[in-house]
Formats: sequence, C-alpha cells, structure tokens
Amino acid sequence: MATMTTMISSLPSTSAFQLPTSTPSPTTLALINPTSTTISYNRRKPNKTKNLLIRASSRMIEKETAETHRPDTFLRESDGGSSNQDVGTNSVRARFEKMIREAQDSVCAAIEAADGGGKFKEDVWSRPGGGGGISRVLQDGAVWEKAGVNVSVVYGVMPPEAYRAAKPANSAENGNFKPEPVPFFAAGISSVLHPKNPFAPTLHFNYRYFETDAPKDAPGAPRQWWFGGGTDLTPAYIFEEDVKHFHSVQKAACDKFDPSFYPRFKKWCDDYFYIKHRDERRGLGGIFFDDLNDYDQEMLLSFATECANSVVDAYIPIIERRKDLPFTDQNKAWQQLRRGRYVEFNLVYDRGTTFGLKTGGRIESILVSLPLTARWEYDHKPEEGSEEWKLLDACINPKEWI
Amino acid sequence: MATMTTMISSLPSTSAFQLPTSTPSPTTLALINPTSTTISYNRRKPNKTKNLLIRASSRMIEKETAETHRPDTFLRESDGGSSNQDVGTNSVRARFEKMIREAQDSVCAAIEAADGGGKFKEDVWSRPGGGGGISRVLQDGAVWEKAGVNVSVVYGVMPPEAYRAAKPANSAENGNFKPEPVPFFAAGISSVLHPKNPFAPTLHFNYRYFETDAPKDAPGAPRQWWFGGGTDLTPAYIFEEDVKHFHSVQKAACDKFDPSFYPRFKKWCDDYFYIKHRDERRGLGGIFFDDLNDYDQEMLLSFATECANSVVDAYIPIIERRKDLPFTDQNKAWQQLRRGRYVEFNLVYDRGTTFGLKTGGRIESILVSLPLTARWEYDHKPEEGSEEWKLLDACINPKEWI
Repeated sequence: MATMTTMISSLPSTSAFQLPTSTPSPTTLALINPTSTTISYNRRKPNKTKNLLIRASSRMIEKETAETHRPDTFLRESDGGSSNQDVGTNSVRARFEKMIREAQDSVCAAIEAADGGGKFKEDVWSRPGGGGGISRVLQDGAVWEKAGVNVSVVYGVMPPEAYRAAKPANSAENGNFKPEPVPFFAAGISSVLHPKNPFAPTLHFNYRYFETDAPKDAPGAPRQWWFGGGTDLTPAYIFEEDVKHFHSVQKAACDKFDPSFYPRFKKWCDDYFYIKHRDERRGLGGIFFDDLNDYDQEMLLSFATECANSVVDAYIPIIERRKDLPFTDQNKAWQQLRRGRYVEFNLVYDRGTTFGLKTGGRIESILVSLPLTARWEYDHKPEEGSEEWKLLDACINPKEWI
Repeated sequence: MATMTTMISSLPSTSAFQLPTSTPSPTTLALINPTSTTISYNRRKPNKTKNLLIRASSRMIEKETAETHRPDTFLRESDGGSSNQDVGTNSVRARFEKMIREAQDSVCAAIEAADGGGKFKEDVWSRPGGGGGISRVLQDGAVWEKAGVNVSVVYGVMPPEAYRAAKPANSAENGNFKPEPVPFFAAGISSVLHPKNPFAPTLHFNYRYFETDAPKDAPGAPRQWWFGGGTDLTPAYIFEEDVKHFHSVQKAACDKFDPSFYPRFKKWCDDYFYIKHRDERRGLGGIFFDDLNDYDQEMLLSFATECANSVVDAYIPIIERRKDLPFTDQNKAWQQLRRGRYVEFNLVYDRGTTFGLKTGGRIESILVSLPLTARWEYDHKPEEGSEEWKLLDACINPKEWI
C-alpha cells in the first residue's frame, strides 16, 4: 500500500480531474476525466444517496518522468504479475489496461491509415509511485490538423472519510473503523481528433475505470469500482447520413448490453456537453456515462470495451466520405468559429480540463484536446435557414437522430 | 433608490464580474471587471482589514435592450441633472462617465486613423433599471484583426451585510443598523486591440469607478468609492524600444501623481496576468491596480483620466513602427500560439470574464476580448536563444523595462 506521502502524488501526468456534478468546488476531486484528457478521482454514486468527496490541493499531482521506452504495463508488479484474480493479469484493472492500450493502438493505426501521411508522435512517462501514461499526437497530417490519443494508469489514495462515505452503512466493521487512507486505481483512454476539412467532424472519446483497494485496516470492507466514458461527434456542418451512422453505431454498442443504455447515455451526453453561456451544446452528442457501477462489473467491462472498439467503425467511414470535399473560405471560417466553441467548452466547463489545469497535471496532455486553430468573430449570427444555422439550431435543440 | 426586484438586475450587458482575489467563489461578486470587458461589483478593501463580499446568483444580470441611439448619458436623471455636487453633473460619477466616453471616442478615432480602412461597428444598449453601455468593435481592418472598445454604466444594489462590512466599525448608526440593500454605481471603459502583424503587439486597458449611496436607513453612513484599472502590452516578439516606450508612458502617467504608483502597479500587473498552469504571464505587463481608495478621490479621478488619456501615446507609435513589417508564416504561427495563451488566460483566470460568463452577462461584449484567431500546437518549445524564446522568457521572468 502506498504511504501517505507518496500516494497523493502518484497520479500520472496525463491526468485531468473531474469535479462531481453536484459539488463544483475546485477542491473536490472526482475520479477520471469525463472528456478531453484522462484521469481524475472522486466518486458520485449513481444511486445519488451518497457522495464520496475527496479533498485535495494543487500539490496532489507531482511532475512526471519522461521515459524512453513503452513498458508492457503500467500496473504495479503486485497488480500485473500475480495469479490472484483480484490483483493478477486476469483482474479487471489488468484487463482494462490491456483494453485501452489495444484501443489506443487500433485507433492510432486507423487514423494513420486514413490520414495517409501524418504519423503519431509518442510521449511515454511514469510516476515514482506507480502508474504512467502514453500520449500520442498526430499534428498537421493530410486529413487531421490535430489528433491526440492518450492512455494513463493512476495509483492514488483517497482520504478514509471518502471511502467510509462510499461503502454500505451496514458493513461489519462500521463503528470501529480505524481511519486510514484508501488506495485506489484508475485507468483511462482519452482522445480528441480534429480534421482539417470543415465537412469532416471532430470526434472525442474517453473510457475510464476506477477501483479502490479494500482498506488495510478493514480487510472485509467492500472494494469499490465504477466505469465512465463516452463518444461524441462535433461537426461544423450536418450531414444527416453521418450523424445517423454515428449514433446508430453508439446505439448498437449500447443495445448489446441494455436497451435503456442508448436513450439514457444519449441524453446524458447532450446534458454534459452544454456551453451554458451560449445556451448551446458543443456538438451533436453521442453517448456519455459516469460513475456507473449498478450493473454487473464484467458486463460493464465488456460494454466499455465494445464502446472503445466501436470508435473506428463510428468515425472513419464519415471521414472517408468528407475528407476531400471541396470547401470555401466561408466554410473554413465557420469550422473555426465552432472550434472556438470547443475551446470555450473545454477551458470553461469541462471538469477534467479545468481541474487538471488547477491541480498541476501535465499541461500538454490536458490541452491536446484543443484544436490547432480557432476563431472568435464579434456577434456572428448565421443567416436563418443556412447550413451554418442548421448546425447551430441542432446544438441549441438536441435532436433524436435515429 | 432601486427596489429590491429591479436593482440586482440593473447591471448592463457589457458587464463582466470580478471575483475578489482572496475569495475565488463564483457566487462572490466584485465590482468592476479588472480586464477584458467592463463592470463587476464587489469590494476588497485596499487596507486588507475587511472584505465586502456580495452574494449573487446568475439571475443578477438580466437581458439588455438594444438601443438605436446613443444617449448623452447613461446616468439616471437624478445623477446627471442636479446641481447637487454629490449627484449632479459635477459629481465624480458624472465626470467619470464623461471621461470614459471621451476616452472611447479618442481611442476609436486613433485606431481608425492608424488602421486606415476599418471602421468601428457600434452597439448601444440600456437596462430598464438605469445604466447602459456602448460596445464598439472593429473587425478585419487593415491593421487590426479585432479591436473592441466598450464603455458601460451600471446601477446595482448590494446586500446590506456587504455595506456594513465595508463601513468603519465606529460609525454612529452601528448597533441599530436596520438592514436594507445599498445602491451602488459603477462605470468603466475596457478595450482589447489585436493587430494582424505578428510584430505589432496586442493592447488591453480598462479603467473603472465604483461608488455606493449612503444607505436610505442610515443617512449619516459614509459613502464608499474606489477606482481600478490598468493598461498592459502583449507582444509576440520583443522590440525593446517598444516595451521601454510603453512602460515609460505608464510611468510618466503614474509619476504625475505618486512616485510609488509605477513600481507598485507594475508588479501588480505582472502578478495579475499570470497563467498559473503555464507558469508564465500573458504578456509584458504595464500597470494594474484595483480597489484603490486610500488616496484623495479627486487625485484618483485625475490619475485614472491621465492613464486612459495616455493609451494612444503609449500604443499608436508602436503600431506605426510595426504594422507594415514583413513577416514569415512562422512569425504568424508564433503570434497565433501567443493568442492561444491570451484565450487561456481570459477564459480560465480573468475574473471579469469567468464571472461574466457564469452570471449571464452579454456574451458578445465579454468575449470581444478574445482574438479573432488562435492556435494550440502540442508541446511547442521555442529554440533556446530564438526571438520566440526571448519573449517566452520575459513572460516567465518579468523584467524591469525602464
């Protein structure tokens, strides 16, 4: 178990942190960045009966160490090398790390193939306390102006009060609980892909898993875990065919597991990516979920895997259709204005980004989500009925696409 | 006196709100936006013995009404038409409004003359409860890609606790103070000027004045007032001649009033425009001050006037020297990266902008401070010793320029 001094600083440099929706204080941490970058820690119980709020200060993220080689795993030896199912290679944490690293490989390979020119640059780093990350960025390619695909694995420790609040009230050790920090594990993949052609949409996806250890001083106490993530599309122009295809792939992934998932996570997505000061959404949505643990754990691992594995099918066919379409300077300027909205959402609202900036995460990993270029015109209003107006209307009034 | 129902909503649409440095809660208001746009309200006493914190919610800014004509004054009749010095045309509030409107005219005239092509577009608005504003924006000119010069006049009311905290503890009515909201007045000019040529610097300035009425139920209670403002320069490349000239003009304006002003306000400026997650400043500084009331009121009015009237002399000669310099694509890309930093500062840290966005101010006025275009490259590091590196170094390690 990590010591008190090393644990809080053992978050990886890719980390960005999520504030709980209900308590938007910058000192309250939430596990795992819901959008642009990667990991954070906290816990809002899906049943809404308890909050697990974790207090931290800006010293909680220490500087990462750059690595020259990509390790086979960022898991601690005890997590990745044992045959014990809870901590060994068959553990959920080990299988989740394997899944996100394979997803990073397959998405990057598909992007490079579709780009036909650009290559990802890779940065690997680690933290002394365990964990690490791989950032891959393709910049100024033939098709994408900026594409980032990051994975990270985090070992941290949450204050005991946080764990106590999260565990069932009738647990055996209740009443004589001896407070001690509770170690946790978090891993995630996060990606933002900004193409050049204004008719080719931006894609974001992020899948993450969180788990606490049983507390050392309360061996019978339950282990907590949950999943979060989502995939969403941000075009500057609407091609109904594209948006329908994208949402259909999300729905198909959801429907393999639960018919309630797609409608529920589609709405969650529309609600999350909301630019309040504009009263409009960043884009045309997709799916988003957070703090999910009220289903079978194996089922949710399979679901997150299915979602991550659906990214290429959901996105690349759209890119192939749009990447070479001719466009005007006006089309490009409108795309750039929408990129400005993307910047506004990420810097002002995105819980992972804003918290990551405040707590000293690796800036270049956190801000790789920002577009290469963006634009702000004073009081720009698209002409009613124009293609630009149609996109804006769909961002203001979310639609059912399928 | 405004009624409870109208007062809180009588802030003008140009308003952006400042959070007090010591209490960065989004529900705590501070009077008058320190940077990009215009007005906010709150009070941090310069003697640091008391805070006047005002609680408010997002409903405090109601929608503005567009006006077709520019009124002679945004003051209420009782403020602008009486011969009583406290409330008439000779009052500080009346003279401050006159000053900022003249400064708006003279700065806009100088910008149009130097641009030689672009013209300002004007938007005028008012609020039912009193006050109003004039936004002027020149976009895509020959020299400036975006230049905004806004003035606004605000009538509002602060909760009685806020006023009680601000007034001297030994006031006559202490002890039998009957709580009632305290009306206040705030006026300001705010401007951000972004040129096209990467060798021509961005300029920001903002001057503001705040005043409370004596409470209706405590006629002997003191009237509170204070000034804030500053002028700062944000180049992408250092021309020492330009930076020295700019700071010399600021120092000359300061030295006419107090030899301590320039060193004090120069440091305050370096401290304020700090992008914490980058550990660098937005630009090369200038002067910045806030909550200033521990000097003679007439002297501070003259000082703010002198500062506002120095903007043209401080800035236009630099523009004349740099606006037509030849530049490369690399120079332009570096300027765009620095514009990205400008966006990061304004959206993440600027108290006026962030609070304005949260409380529902007029978005287009608040965000007119953002550049027309900006850029984010992954992990960009200027070559050591290069001109780009020198600028970055000066943003990381603020220098004494004169």
